[in-house]
Amino acid sequence: MAESNFEVIPYPEMWRDLDMDVERFDKSRLMLGEVYEKMYLTQPNRPAKMAYFDDMISEIFGRRIEEMLEVKKEGRPVVGTFCVYIPEEVVVAAGGVCVGLCGGSQGSIPDAEKILPRNICPMVKSAYGFKAGKICPYFQTVDFVYGETTCDAKKKTWEILDRLVPTHVMEIPQMKNKRDKALWLEEVKDFKDKVEDVCQKEITAADLNNAIQVINNKRKALQRLTALRAGNPAPISGKDALLIEQIAFYDEPVRFAEKVNELCDELEERVKVGTGVIDGGAPRVMVSGTPMALPNWKVHNLIETAGAVVVNEESCIGTRYFKDLIDESKSTIDDQLDVLTDRYMQIDCSCFTPNDDRIDQILKEYKDSKAQGILHYSLQFCHTYNIEEIKVREMCEKEGIPYLSIESDYSPEDVGQLQTRIEAFLEQIRG
Amino acid sequence: MAESNFEVIPYPEMWRDLDMDVERFDKSRLMLGEVYEKMYLTQPNRPAKMAYFDDMISEIFGRRIEEMLEVKKEGRPVVGTFCVYIPEEVVVAAGGVCVGLCGGSQGSIPDAEKILPRNICPMVKSAYGFKAGKICPYFQTVDFVYGETTCDAKKKTWEILDRLVPTHVMEIPQMKNKRDKALWLEEVKDFKDKVEDVCQKEITAADLNNAIQVINNKRKALQRLTALRAGNPAPISGKDALLIEQIAFYDEPVRFAEKVNELCDELEERVKVGTGVIDGGAPRVMVSGTPMALPNWKVHNLIETAGAVVVNEESCIGTRYFKDLIDESKSTIDDQLDVLTDRYMQIDCSCFTPNDDRIDQILKEYKDSKAQGILHYSLQFCHTYNIEEIKVREMCEKEGIPYLSIESDYSPEDVGQLQTRIEAFLEQIRG
Repeated sequence: MAESNFEVIPYPEMWRDLDMDVERFDKSRLMLGEVYEKMYLTQPNRPAKMAYFDDMISEIFGRRIEEMLEVKKEGRPVVGTFCVYIPEEVVVAAGGVCVGLCGGSQGSIPDAEKILPRNICPMVKSAYGFKAGKICPYFQTVDFVYGETTCDAKKKTWEILDRLVPTHVMEIPQMKNKRDKALWLEEVKDFKDKVEDVCQKEITAADLNNAIQVINNKRKALQRLTALRAGNPAPISGKDALLIEQIAFYDEPVRFAEKVNELCDELEERVKVGTGVIDGGAPRVMVSGTPMALPNWKVHNLIETAGAVVVNEESCIGTRYFKDLIDESKSTIDDQLDVLTDRYMQIDCSCFTPNDDRIDQILKEYKDSKAQGILHYSLQFCHTYNIEEIKVREMCEKEGIPYLSIESDYSPEDVGQLQTRIEAFLEQIRG
Repeated sequence: MAESNFEVIPYPEMWRDLDMDVERFDKSRLMLGEVYEKMYLTQPNRPAKMAYFDDMISEIFGRRIEEMLEVKKEGRPVVGTFCVYIPEEVVVAAGGVCVGLCGGSQGSIPDAEKILPRNICPMVKSAYGFKAGKICPYFQTVDFVYGETTCDAKKKTWEILDRLVPTHVMEIPQMKNKRDKALWLEEVKDFKDKVEDVCQKEITAADLNNAIQVINNKRKALQRLTALRAGNPAPISGKDALLIEQIAFYDEPVRFAEKVNELCDELEERVKVGTGVIDGGAPRVMVSGTPMALPNWKVHNLIETAGAVVVNEESCIGTRYFKDLIDESKSTIDDQLDVLTDRYMQIDCSCFTPNDDRIDQILKEYKDSKAQGILHYSLQFCHTYNIEEIKVREMCEKEGIPYLSIESDYSPEDVGQLQTRIEAFLEQIRG
């Protein structure tokens, strides 16, 4: 793909049909294309198989939406989400699409701040703003949004979002006792009922088993990619890996897994022959913390522009999404939902108290990825990650791991300051 | 009580025995006395029966602590809390004391900010700081702290606080379905076990029934006080009423109810003869929102200094604490815990989604209290109240109720700006 020809393709008629603010949205489209070209297509020595993912960005507001509209036309459900706790297997079992909604840009935040408080998480504001401003085709396409109660800001914003798009909320418990799993399992069953209600079709055990395998395969492909990033020199940039983790939330899962595996074949070869995207002596950084929703590439770009490479994302858009699989051996719906809930209970989101498994997981991923330092990233005003950061910091101090903690939003205002701090952190790693 | 003689009495030896930072704490004590004298004892035409509550402030760091130490010496439990969801009836049934802990001053916040993020709720930071700095005798006296999961900041701070004082956490669900009550009831039963474990004594049905009556009586006395505040001219200042609602969290409940009722007798007489603390034409303001922990009198002081009177607090330190009673007719522990949980499930904290009952409750209290405007108060960074504020605002717009929303912390920095906004709001009420 010639760099100068990159474009996020416009589909103005489809957008008009989706009741979008086409004129305004088209500006975002152009901006995304420019930023992508600058941040992504200028990277040296990219794997050839990244072409598919470049294409996914090029068609992010077009072909993928057409596919979803096709699904919808056939009466199958299209469900929008914001959280890795939503059991997408249930939607896939119904032949539907589970899609992560827009929530990663500054551009939609002023729309949200017309009604929401300013001092809440930028991801929540951005997401609400995308719907309020009619500038996200995914939001315009879904049958309903499936929210959850993982944080105060999301939990209460869903009540307001529900006025703009039907928003059903799953109660995620705050502890991991037996009684919590019982409550959660009931929520999963209600979700299944809701999905069946949309598509007017009962999900069979065979459907669900197939969906479990489909999503397991997607997660396995991402696990494979993560393992390959341990190679030195790094066979792929952190920015590209993050992009793939972001695309995981909106691409068709069977195709996506196939394409990630094709990329992994190439990366395996790279590792074998010692080809990397950066010199083997470059500092290797693990990023841990809150999710970076597309197109939030700010921190990865700063780290990699400064001559280091990101080798792992311990995050919801990252390993938290795919580190655990579902037992595929169950043959009744009840048993399947039971092991499904078990899998989801292993997610170590900071919404749980206590959540010390996450600290162990961070150390494990740090070692596995052969990182040399940890950057903790917290979205602004994300109280749970921000307070849990204390324990991450203490673990790093105890283990002698170079560490930097940053809290940031989507604005470009703190870029200069972050750059200075990241450069100092990389100097610390270089020793 | 002569104004110039008011003093918060020092108990340096007791404080030393409690491992407090006596020198530093003594400065807070002096400051509290000065502020109290200035804000409280200069109020015109106070009810004579406020003398008891003045005395409670005078002895806040002394005699009441002695009483609690006495309880402890006898092996009865002393439990510290931060939330109206903690079933104090269970503690009282065991012959113990349930006490709201310090968390209302700016002075302890720097201690907390050594470890906690700055951009979380000032009440949470203040509370943590009181323990970290050893400047709250209540914190130093309790057997354990009983935390809860009502907000992100508290939930995660308890994990850190637990290092300084044993902190047990009750999981409060986030919805009010049947499955939520089931979970909650289990939590209440665990709490009972924990309390019994501390005092090595089983709570009987007779104990619990007695405790339910004791706490019901306390709540009834506060209901009576609230009803009397509807009188015009207002028979008591909002500042004094808020003070009583604050003292409700640390005073001995039987004595407290008696003293509140004695005050109410006096207020009844005042209402009958038309005596008030302020002219009958003064604007009447209802305050709604987050709790004002002692000595957070900032907003009430601004409102009343500007010539208005506060007639209701729809807040946890306010009506949310006492609007609901427990059915006293049950004779077995299981039945009692069941109706107890029912009562607690009626609390309309913004941690629930949805929580629209609260909006109805605000309107009801507005009408009952004969208020003429609503001031919504949110502690800084309190996402749940801050977002729910949208619905309060909309209700006020719909009902034509003069409305002001403020978000504030414990610092004096915004006092000037708040004063201007409050004066404009009062002008709007005056019409």
